[in-house]
Amino acid sequence: MPLSSTLTRIVLAARPQGEPTADNFRLEQVPMPSPGEGQVLLRNHYLSLDPYMRGRMNAGRSYAKPVEIGEVMDGGTVSEVIESRHPDLTPGDMVLAHGGWQTHAIADGRALKRKLDAGIAPLTTALGVYGMPGFTAYVGLHEIGKPQPGETVVVAAASGPVGATVGQIARLQGARTVGIAGGERKRAYLQDELGFDVVLDHRAPDFAAQLRAACPQGIDVYFENVGGAVFDAVLPLLNDFARIPVCGLVAHYNDRALPAGPDRLPMLLSHILTRHLTVRGFIQHDFIQLYPQFLREMGGWLQEGRIKYREDQVDGLENAPAALIGLLKGENFGKVVVKL
Amino acid sequence: MPLSSTLTRIVLAARPQGEPTADNFRLEQVPMPSPGEGQVLLRNHYLSLDPYMRGRMNAGRSYAKPVEIGEVMDGGTVSEVIESRHPDLTPGDMVLAHGGWQTHAIADGRALKRKLDAGIAPLTTALGVYGMPGFTAYVGLHEIGKPQPGETVVVAAASGPVGATVGQIARLQGARTVGIAGGERKRAYLQDELGFDVVLDHRAPDFAAQLRAACPQGIDVYFENVGGAVFDAVLPLLNDFARIPVCGLVAHYNDRALPAGPDRLPMLLSHILTRHLTVRGFIQHDFIQLYPQFLREMGGWLQEGRIKYREDQVDGLENAPAALIGLLKGENFGKVVVKL
Repeated sequence: MPLSSTLTRIVLAARPQGEPTADNFRLEQVPMPSPGEGQVLLRNHYLSLDPYMRGRMNAGRSYAKPVEIGEVMDGGTVSEVIESRHPDLTPGDMVLAHGGWQTHAIADGRALKRKLDAGIAPLTTALGVYGMPGFTAYVGLHEIGKPQPGETVVVAAASGPVGATVGQIARLQGARTVGIAGGERKRAYLQDELGFDVVLDHRAPDFAAQLRAACPQGIDVYFENVGGAVFDAVLPLLNDFARIPVCGLVAHYNDRALPAGPDRLPMLLSHILTRHLTVRGFIQHDFIQLYPQFLREMGGWLQEGRIKYREDQVDGLENAPAALIGLLKGENFGKVVVKL
Repeated sequence: MPLSSTLTRIVLAARPQGEPTADNFRLEQVPMPSPGEGQVLLRNHYLSLDPYMRGRMNAGRSYAKPVEIGEVMDGGTVSEVIESRHPDLTPGDMVLAHGGWQTHAIADGRALKRKLDAGIAPLTTALGVYGMPGFTAYVGLHEIGKPQPGETVVVAAASGPVGATVGQIARLQGARTVGIAGGERKRAYLQDELGFDVVLDHRAPDFAAQLRAACPQGIDVYFENVGGAVFDAVLPLLNDFARIPVCGLVAHYNDRALPAGPDRLPMLLSHILTRHLTVRGFIQHDFIQLYPQFLREMGGWLQEGRIKYREDQVDGLENAPAALIGLLKGENFGKVVVKL
């Protein structure tokens, strides 16, 4: 197939005010670039959509520098090398890349550290359970949550790729797991397929009371990727020495101002003090030294069927904006991957 | 000297509403108790006053169970064994005890693990730099703060026994130290005697701007024992991966209700997430396994004059309530010890 003379991409057209809308994105075609010395040209086959992308659409400080207006939206991809000027990469190689929201991308060969082997797990898992979200779950538990046998681990957004993996790893380690997700389909999947001990719907009017009933021994680990009302319900149930890995706050990504008072900041500090809590923010890259160990261990779990996962596949780059908007509202069911 | 037939003690007469007052305490005399098998009778010579005592005057959950109405106020003491029914203790032994706000106390011999040796440091240091407050500083840095050479460490209540020790240990470890204290006398002491790099007065109207100017490289460790306006000024200056050991919140101990809004709890969580912060509440006892190491290392520093300290001595048990009330307002200058 001769190489097209253009690539298709989606750029940030305007910064969102609150929830993103379709107008914040612009689909455009630009001339196909050529790789320089040491670079490769990639054909992106699958694009990962993740909650952190909402943060990068803002001008302010977040995990990483924001995407600038007119720049291509950032994102992880499963990509194929189609032209190589790097000695270690050959056309046909499948790699994990930061290809972004576009059909093709130029990348430094040195940055493409992970060639993908479909023999271990399907290629798209490199964007989910066997990639960044799975690694987030793994290191958040390994380095911060440290669940002990018999402890109670509560996971928000439990049907997402981070939460589902947190729950399953914690269970493998002997903890009791309480998942939180929206709707009966997700509840049934988490409880019946993934083995969560209890699954609660955060939209239930008596959610806080349900959570209390589901945690008769209190909460030892709360894996925080949501914030909002779930955090509020968790806080009074935390045991002494509880650990709270914080890797996301999707309930707040669209916030435009601080909520009304009273000011509970001193109350949170008091809880941290009197209950000996550890609250720690992280991204997976903070523990990148554990990546080889993660690949080994998670690869084994996947092949043995001890860790399961679910994908929510979207067809076509043009549908990525709507899929991201839906993901931020919890409308996805599993890891969102866009087939390009 | 024949043993008196009564002991004098101060009990909690009523729970404070906000700031404690003299009415919350009652001085009384009760018959002298006798030690049972395995117990000793102690003559308390020095009583430690500490901010945590405010928490124990409340009914609610704090570090430890509250003092009940009519119960003797809790507190660490330097005490002399005057009658022993325990084989390892002999009249005349000086020990570190939880003797409480009273002239004499009964203690289990097994609980008196530390005999005091005035040859290493004056006995009263066992209540301050060479005791609980010093150990709090030591473990908070050792296990949570972990200051690295060249990092900026900010210490609130820097003239108190915890803060002064934090600053000096951090300086020994090569960090740049910024102390916060009230008034020119304390400032001069911390800067000239203890070697803090900068000392600021939290009561200055432009305190937040002064703190920003004093931390051009941001803040890597904030040793929190105060809360309130100091925390608010610190928060925007925290660097990525900053650590916040939380061992006290004296600014909030008298709070009767949550402050007015907006609600900054989500903002604090966002900071924790996006800046990869570690916020961890602790008391020294959480790391009690480090106590022998602390005694060795701090003993050496004290004998070499590398760590200094200051005591604020109060005469007579009857003056303990006023001294605690003053301490909670920052009126003390150094470790408050009551000579009984």
